[in-house]
Amino acid sequence: MSAIELAETTLMRIERDEDALHAYAWLDRDAVMAEARRLDSQGLHGPLSGHTVAVKDIFDTADMPTGCGSPIHAGRRPAKDAAAVAAIRAACGLVVGKSVTTEFAQFPPAATRNPHNLAHSPGGSSSGSAATVAAGGASLATGTQTAGSIIRPAAFCGIVGYKPSFAVISRNGLSLISETLDTIGGFARTVSEVALFVGVMAGRGDLVTPLVPRAPRLALWETPDEGDADPHAVAELHRVAQVAASAGAVVEPLPAAAPWNGLLEAQKVIMAWEGVRALAFERCFHRDLLSAPLRAYLDEAALTSPEAYLAALHTRRTLGAELSAAMEPFDAVLTLSARGEAPLAETGTGDPQFNRVWTLLGGPALHLPTARGPLGLPIGVQLVATPGRDPGLLGAALWLESVLG
Amino acid sequence: MSAIELAETTLMRIERDEDALHAYAWLDRDAVMAEARRLDSQGLHGPLSGHTVAVKDIFDTADMPTGCGSPIHAGRRPAKDAAAVAAIRAACGLVVGKSVTTEFAQFPPAATRNPHNLAHSPGGSSSGSAATVAAGGASLATGTQTAGSIIRPAAFCGIVGYKPSFAVISRNGLSLISETLDTIGGFARTVSEVALFVGVMAGRGDLVTPLVPRAPRLALWETPDEGDADPHAVAELHRVAQVAASAGAVVEPLPAAAPWNGLLEAQKVIMAWEGVRALAFERCFHRDLLSAPLRAYLDEAALTSPEAYLAALHTRRTLGAELSAAMEPFDAVLTLSARGEAPLAETGTGDPQFNRVWTLLGGPALHLPTARGPLGLPIGVQLVATPGRDPGLLGAALWLESVLG
Repeated sequence: MSAIELAETTLMRIERDEDALHAYAWLDRDAVMAEARRLDSQGLHGPLSGHTVAVKDIFDTADMPTGCGSPIHAGRRPAKDAAAVAAIRAACGLVVGKSVTTEFAQFPPAATRNPHNLAHSPGGSSSGSAATVAAGGASLATGTQTAGSIIRPAAFCGIVGYKPSFAVISRNGLSLISETLDTIGGFARTVSEVALFVGVMAGRGDLVTPLVPRAPRLALWETPDEGDADPHAVAELHRVAQVAASAGAVVEPLPAAAPWNGLLEAQKVIMAWEGVRALAFERCFHRDLLSAPLRAYLDEAALTSPEAYLAALHTRRTLGAELSAAMEPFDAVLTLSARGEAPLAETGTGDPQFNRVWTLLGGPALHLPTARGPLGLPIGVQLVATPGRDPGLLGAALWLESVLG
Repeated sequence: MSAIELAETTLMRIERDEDALHAYAWLDRDAVMAEARRLDSQGLHGPLSGHTVAVKDIFDTADMPTGCGSPIHAGRRPAKDAAAVAAIRAACGLVVGKSVTTEFAQFPPAATRNPHNLAHSPGGSSSGSAATVAAGGASLATGTQTAGSIIRPAAFCGIVGYKPSFAVISRNGLSLISETLDTIGGFARTVSEVALFVGVMAGRGDLVTPLVPRAPRLALWETPDEGDADPHAVAELHRVAQVAASAGAVVEPLPAAAPWNGLLEAQKVIMAWEGVRALAFERCFHRDLLSAPLRAYLDEAALTSPEAYLAALHTRRTLGAELSAAMEPFDAVLTLSARGEAPLAETGTGDPQFNRVWTLLGGPALHLPTARGPLGLPIGVQLVATPGRDPGLLGAALWLESVLG
């Protein structure tokens, strides 16, 4: 298919859904067609040829505004591409628009709906990215995760979401909310596509080419929060573990429970402390244009003492090392991605309680959709590993995807 | 002094020197006066009242262009303040302009000259920031360090430069060249002023108020590179150690030499790998507007293999832990900041060989000016510590500053 045909098909699909889905903060049909014509006429080909890409609206783009889900930045034109976006374009990915983010990738929900059921949330903060990939509006989309903003929307929308290890992808040109947590990743329909996409953004060939599916050593992690999870989600986790074991994977319980709650609290403290500092411009000089919930969250965050923040960093180092040591013998930990199916949109974007600790640790995390829940909405499982073990995690995910069919 | 008087005096001083010094990439007299009038008329006071601030031209500013020392970004208006700049303004610091950076804070030198001798370099990459503080054009200036871009210019210009621990100050709105190395810090005339300044940017009251000068435990570090240093710089290091010991400090040799060269090489590999990815937009889409040396550097950096990068990250973890363990019993390591006096401008901005390893480790580093060399240019010493030990390092620097007079 030519880039022009790809662009036409894609735009038709986006335009069909957009009034109901609200996945895009910016869409410029003429610009997309012009870019497609350029790719075709110059005969350009690259690793992302044939892919359409939605870019979360907190990445700078040279040719589109970057609104960050906030009236403070509405229409702001950064006049440069974020490094990750430039890597996508250099690989001949066709950028189709800016996907809706919650306000500064924080908690207040955006207008985007879940393509599987419009009454439900697509998750957040990468709401538009997950929704459009699930709806076929783009084959790939960028995301960022500070607590659970890639894994949760992927789970609710029934697609693959992959947050690589911390700092694998350059954040140059990204609006940051947490210096030590924000991680760029992506959404796709399959594990191999998401690995290709993240590999391109990272400039990491080793995340793509030697990707061999193999029966992994998996640790099954029944988090202390499992009581908060829906029974069908817990049952699905155990079904997947059973299928994996039957197909030849080693599946053992993860021998570590103690540090979980301390790490969960540490993540919240670090995210709050760093968030109020990252948004100093908005909070100090455009306070009235922040939503009331975000203003309240930041105001409370501003009360965190240096001692509490430093203690949280200490907890991350010490308890994090303890949890990481328990994970080390395994290719990946198999665990819950979210509480269960997507919640109703009016209740928010869901809770990142199953993601915070893994983001804090800084290792790779991947959501694999595996089934549907009682409401007919997608559910699945999460694979996580210690920092730097992305190739092993991707191999395990690829294998699991194939044995699950 | 009113803000208006401060602005007038400062602008007069800047304008007197600017034709020779080239410290500013952007200066708008009317905007500075308007801001000063606003501070006075609204009776605004904050921790940085009475201070004038120059902002390195890789920090986004809402009211001034951010050129990054490159024609690619000349005149670009980001329409928002970097978080650190917003923190400065919220503390009532009077921003006087954008100070010259080398091209993307990399190695090719800028036009800025050393105020102590115009034939010499002010160092880089925070060239304009260091030069204007030394010349009295601003009492404070922001800087960033990836290899030695704060400590070296501070040394060459004879002022205090302080790079806090990695990630202490939010990089939201900063043009990045290295995800895991770039660190925001500042320049001032005294230790207490630089601590106040960095404390404000970080939102870290504990870096400012409990700052108590006390006789520290110092490790004297004679780097394997000392043979590359000028004899007068080495002599000054030993003189300072002697004075400190006489005044009551414990001064012992640092018992670690082995890991140095491995760490030095690892820093170069990491900076190159991350740099070529951070500058993807510029390299892929504005290649012709990069200077020839930077283009050549990035092209060579692009050849680094994932294996080499991952090995360098491994070296940082393992040898870094070894060096950090040796540093742990001390409040600070006393070492060289630079080879010696500022080099002639036509030879470049000097070599960051005495800074790379400490930046790689991620701990605080501070330059203290202590004397003049044979050419009459400033020299001094560097204090470094392990990550998070900023308060102890600042206390040691304050004490050393006072005993040296």
